[in-house]
Amino acid sequence: MRTRKLYEGGGLRTFVLVLDKGDEAFAEISAFARAERVTGAGLTAVGGCREVTLGYFDPEITGYRSTSFAEQMEVLSLVGDIATQDDEPALHAHLVLGRKDSSAIGGHLERAVVFPTLEVVLTETPAHLRKRVDQGTGLALIAPDASSGPA
Amino acid sequence: MRTRKLYEGGGLRTFVLVLDKGDEAFAEISAFARAERVTGAGLTAVGGCREVTLGYFDPEITGYRSTSFAEQMEVLSLVGDIATQDDEPALHAHLVLGRKDSSAIGGHLERAVVFPTLEVVLTETPAHLRKRVDQGTGLALIAPDASSGPA
Amino acid sequence: MRTRKLYEGGGLRTFVLVLDKGDEAFAEISAFARAERVTGAGLTAVGGCREVTLGYFDPEITGYRSTSFAEQMEVLSLVGDIATQDDEPALHAHLVLGRKDSSAIGGHLERAVVFPTLEVVLTETPAHLRKRVDQGTGLALIAPDASSGPA
Repeated sequence: MRTRKLYEGGGLRTFVLVLDKGDEAFAEISAFARAERVTGAGLTAVGGCREVTLGYFDPEITGYRSTSFAEQMEVLSLVGDIATQDDEPALHAHLVLGRKDSSAIGGHLERAVVFPTLEVVLTETPAHLRKRVDQGTGLALIAPDASSGPA
Repeated sequence: MRTRKLYEGGGLRTFVLVLDKGDEAFAEISAFARAERVTGAGLTAVGGCREVTLGYFDPEITGYRSTSFAEQMEVLSLVGDIATQDDEPALHAHLVLGRKDSSAIGGHLERAVVFPTLEVVLTETPAHLRKRVDQGTGLALIAPDASSGPA
Repeated sequence: MRTRKLYEGGGLRTFVLVLDKGDEAFAEISAFARAERVTGAGLTAVGGCREVTLGYFDPEITGYRSTSFAEQMEVLSLVGDIATQDDEPALHAHLVLGRKDSSAIGGHLERAVVFPTLEVVLTETPAHLRKRVDQGTGLALIAPDASSGPA
């Protein structure tokens, strides 16, 4: 992965992250967020991948079911955000993928091996977004009341 | 729904809106836009929902056909904008949803009941975007020439 | 296509581009980027179209396969970026489309004829993003190390 800052001003920072062949997207984006100490951000991406594991939140088991696909697919969209959980950046992103026959699949990003590229635009805000474990589902959800706004 | 301002500066404002279990997304986002007097914005979101009504613009009837789904789905993307129509904020958003078998469906957001969360990043610009009814289709479309740019 | 600047400050510019019935999206967005000398940007869009040609990168032929569809579809998402290649703005965007039965398809944007509208939010950053041809695939990919950050 190679990265570049595109903008910085007034507490806002925008970066482009370009993932290379074989990079795993969840790990690479998370590592970038830790290195840059990102505490609140939104992101979008397009590109391609050749292996993915997608999560589906199943209320019957109150947890995620995972499904893996090993085939070349277009990353039609990756939309997500970064908040902090236990003082570490937590990436939450969803993928839509396009198959050879143009049909679309998608789910919660658990793992995606990039091929040949993934271009991520990440916009960080000065806010500190915190996650808190939700009692009903056990999921860590963004808690705006436990977060802090612009300095 | 709980909200927090993430950034404010130079006429730009960015908010996070976190919708809770059972919140209806179209109504909640629209109510936020009215309360904050948003006149021009873009937004993206990810999360989950358990009921949706999706619109499809059908040129044969020059109007929308609606289809409803009642099942747990991932909100793979919600992309949209806010402009004003008759001095009220008008939300225009499209959804892509992921089903239990990873297949994707989608349409124009008419109604979506959130479960367990929907995380919306909304960026407001200082412009005032106005909609105008299009003669051919009867739809209210953004009219850049009737809008006003940054102050 | 009609356009309006929504924001300008500190090197950031945000525009809305509203494409009209019959406009071809790849050509119109590219022409706008050339006219405004955009060298680095991210964009999202929603709307509808009645003809599309979608690309799929096929590693077996180390190139794109194209598939065309001629039917009214919702543009559920268009996510992409603009960099420069040989000193010209190069648009890279992926589409997700919703059919009458709510199923979703998608791919790399090669051609999309708009109907009745396509609303694009384009955010330009002060960086100059450059593309470079990748030896393995022959594709022009963003090269952060050949790009330049905020002035």
